[in-house]
Amino acid sequence: MNDTALPNALPDLNCDDLAVQNLAVLGATGSIGDSTLALVRAHRERFCVVGLSGFGQLDKLFALCQEFRPQMVAVPENKAAEFDERLQAAGLDTRVLSGSDGLDVLASAPQVDTVVAAIVGAAGLSSTLSAAKAGKKILLANKESLVMAGHLVMAAARTHGAVILPIDSEHNAIFQCLPPAVQADNKAIHRADLGVKQLWLTASGGGFLRKTYAQMAAATAEQAVNHPNWSMGKKISIDSATMMNKGLELIEACHLFDLPEHQVQIVIHPNSVVHSLVEYVDGSLLAELGTPDMRTPIAHALSFPSRMTADVKPLNLFELASLEFIKPDEQKFLSLVLARFAAKCGTGACITLNAANEVAVQAFLDGRIRLTDIAQVVGRCLIAPEVSAHFDDEFADLPSIMAMDSKVRTVASTMIDGFENASFDDLQKNDFEQAFERIYSKEAAQ
Amino acid sequence: MNDTALPNALPDLNCDDLAVQNLAVLGATGSIGDSTLALVRAHRERFCVVGLSGFGQLDKLFALCQEFRPQMVAVPENKAAEFDERLQAAGLDTRVLSGSDGLDVLASAPQVDTVVAAIVGAAGLSSTLSAAKAGKKILLANKESLVMAGHLVMAAARTHGAVILPIDSEHNAIFQCLPPAVQADNKAIHRADLGVKQLWLTASGGGFLRKTYAQMAAATAEQAVNHPNWSMGKKISIDSATMMNKGLELIEACHLFDLPEHQVQIVIHPNSVVHSLVEYVDGSLLAELGTPDMRTPIAHALSFPSRMTADVKPLNLFELASLEFIKPDEQKFLSLVLARFAAKCGTGACITLNAANEVAVQAFLDGRIRLTDIAQVVGRCLIAPEVSAHFDDEFADLPSIMAMDSKVRTVASTMIDGFENASFDDLQKNDFEQAFERIYSKEAAQ
Repeated sequence: MNDTALPNALPDLNCDDLAVQNLAVLGATGSIGDSTLALVRAHRERFCVVGLSGFGQLDKLFALCQEFRPQMVAVPENKAAEFDERLQAAGLDTRVLSGSDGLDVLASAPQVDTVVAAIVGAAGLSSTLSAAKAGKKILLANKESLVMAGHLVMAAARTHGAVILPIDSEHNAIFQCLPPAVQADNKAIHRADLGVKQLWLTASGGGFLRKTYAQMAAATAEQAVNHPNWSMGKKISIDSATMMNKGLELIEACHLFDLPEHQVQIVIHPNSVVHSLVEYVDGSLLAELGTPDMRTPIAHALSFPSRMTADVKPLNLFELASLEFIKPDEQKFLSLVLARFAAKCGTGACITLNAANEVAVQAFLDGRIRLTDIAQVVGRCLIAPEVSAHFDDEFADLPSIMAMDSKVRTVASTMIDGFENASFDDLQKNDFEQAFERIYSKEAAQ
Repeated sequence: MNDTALPNALPDLNCDDLAVQNLAVLGATGSIGDSTLALVRAHRERFCVVGLSGFGQLDKLFALCQEFRPQMVAVPENKAAEFDERLQAAGLDTRVLSGSDGLDVLASAPQVDTVVAAIVGAAGLSSTLSAAKAGKKILLANKESLVMAGHLVMAAARTHGAVILPIDSEHNAIFQCLPPAVQADNKAIHRADLGVKQLWLTASGGGFLRKTYAQMAAATAEQAVNHPNWSMGKKISIDSATMMNKGLELIEACHLFDLPEHQVQIVIHPNSVVHSLVEYVDGSLLAELGTPDMRTPIAHALSFPSRMTADVKPLNLFELASLEFIKPDEQKFLSLVLARFAAKCGTGACITLNAANEVAVQAFLDGRIRLTDIAQVVGRCLIAPEVSAHFDDEFADLPSIMAMDSKVRTVASTMIDGFENASFDDLQKNDFEQAFERIYSKEAAQ
């Protein structure tokens, strides 16, 4: 797609047309934003960008405002006044919103049909929940919304009629393979007569698939950031290397598709051609395949229940290298064991998994701990009594979730300080599983 | 499934229960019949067998009557009286129907909800059409219904609200991968906003995939009947060896899914794990995978739109050998070129393809011609002026279709007599394509 040939504005676009979908793109300057807006450019007759947000690259956001002339834009609080002046100077009457409240307003604005929730990290949580409460169609890329607050987001979506369409390639693939009745009506997938036996989440296996645990332990940040198939940010690249990314996606899948963790399997598929599968009780396995390109799942979700072109290089079956499927080594990729425990345990454990992982990944990128220590930190946080004591808390609102998140970050940070000053033996899969059993039995006794 | 442990009758089955689907199984003694009835045994609460037919293995049919106690059974005309006596002697009050008319009565009987159309060959044509005109749910395994009379069957289904669900593994796979709106409402697939770009029919490639044309020409009937993945009858095994089977399925797919032949691609997939695929305009390819077992597609169709268990060995992704996809060699597998021409040309050419192929396959099994001569016979029939002169005929009813079928069989038989008495050079892909062009331009000029 040749973006440079496009004019700076969309003069022919009539946002009052009922056939047009009004979009708010949250996290517009990131890679999901790029892909989404590329699709909007290619299908001007179908979409109108009424809102944008960006908290990092404000020059890029300004250029997008010039191009799409949205009604609203959300920026950080300390940049709002300056951004407003800049827009006015350019003759744009875009309303400037600011901070987390601004994102909430944008996500729930009456003129918005569809919210693209592509903010990275916990910062995207509140706006996703706002969109769900406002009954929007939500294209969900923000992992934390489901990992930390899946119970709130899904409940709000059900109560207020929001439709949540995942746009990461794996969950989007699963959605495409679900029973027609589930796709059409947002029905609960676990209805027995729909026949879903289990989901298969595919994983690339990351850069350490063919390496030993010892090689993983010795990896530098630069080695770990290098992903074989997808070009991604540093955090998610490290999560891919440890397979924590797939662990978080397991939790997302449980929320999105309303299934217990034992009905979500993880399979390593280094080719990244099969994006995920749904297995049915009659022996059918439905799979979605394609060239790895985010525009495919985003186009699917934007145009759902119809389809539209995405300018993606078609997958050539004849040119396919042989497809490989490998069982993950949970001794090496401990993250999978930890995530499965968290998914089974509930919200408190999932918040812990996510927060401890973020702190540990940063510590690894800062050269403070080894790559394999990330799972050690996360696992030890999960079994720390001062943390697991809160696993049964209710987490009925965002403040309680953020309080737990904050508590875990403190525990993880303290733990990492300790890691730097002491040598210790790595806990193994078996050690964690025994500790998890003790937590389960304690919970069961209560 | 241990059939021997089951009682001879189904005493607990209440055929008046609205939740029960009343089945007529046409071709009950064949392999599709076996699989269908195995599923019925495993799901007695959901199905009641109200009708059976069998024209070959009458002892087996009699045993099935004892087990399922159907209201009606259809047998050959010259066996009806004897079969009736036998049933009465066994204390069964099953009504005996006979011949083609009997099949029609069975397929359209008011108490029948679902017709399993598993008769082999042109003999299954009339009953499928009767079922379509009676607005039944039809589980279609009979190829000839669509190859010879697809225009009549599909039109009757649309007019009378019949739902046609394919139960051969390839078309069933495609059906499962279609847009939810098409599956739910029997909508026309070609509606642009549904986004189907093309279908991919997979083929095993048969026993001669890795052999040369010369080796194929030298093959004995015994070698050719031996299929690598599926256990099948002789005729279909030869069709698999020549890939005419896939050519016929191409024509079926065009009718079933209302798409032109250029939107149906054929890909060789020797593993027979991916049963077929649907490609969408956004870059998504949906595929159905599974262990090769007819119970999967039949269970899918029987329970559609819900699902039920089929006792099929689950596909183990981890144990999968690498999956291979190969472009068919149309120089070697001329059948594909001939079938594509027939699909493009219309009913008359499709009747010709099917009839000439049947005659030629029999001649090969009788040791009269070489395996490669089958395509030579079929192709030469397609371009014979006395045949192609009728390609534009209307074929508005079964008699006109059967008359064309008969005409072609005569031409093919005469041709085969000539083959035995003369040596000739094989026509190549290019020769046929040039001849086809002349037929197109003649048709266009009319």
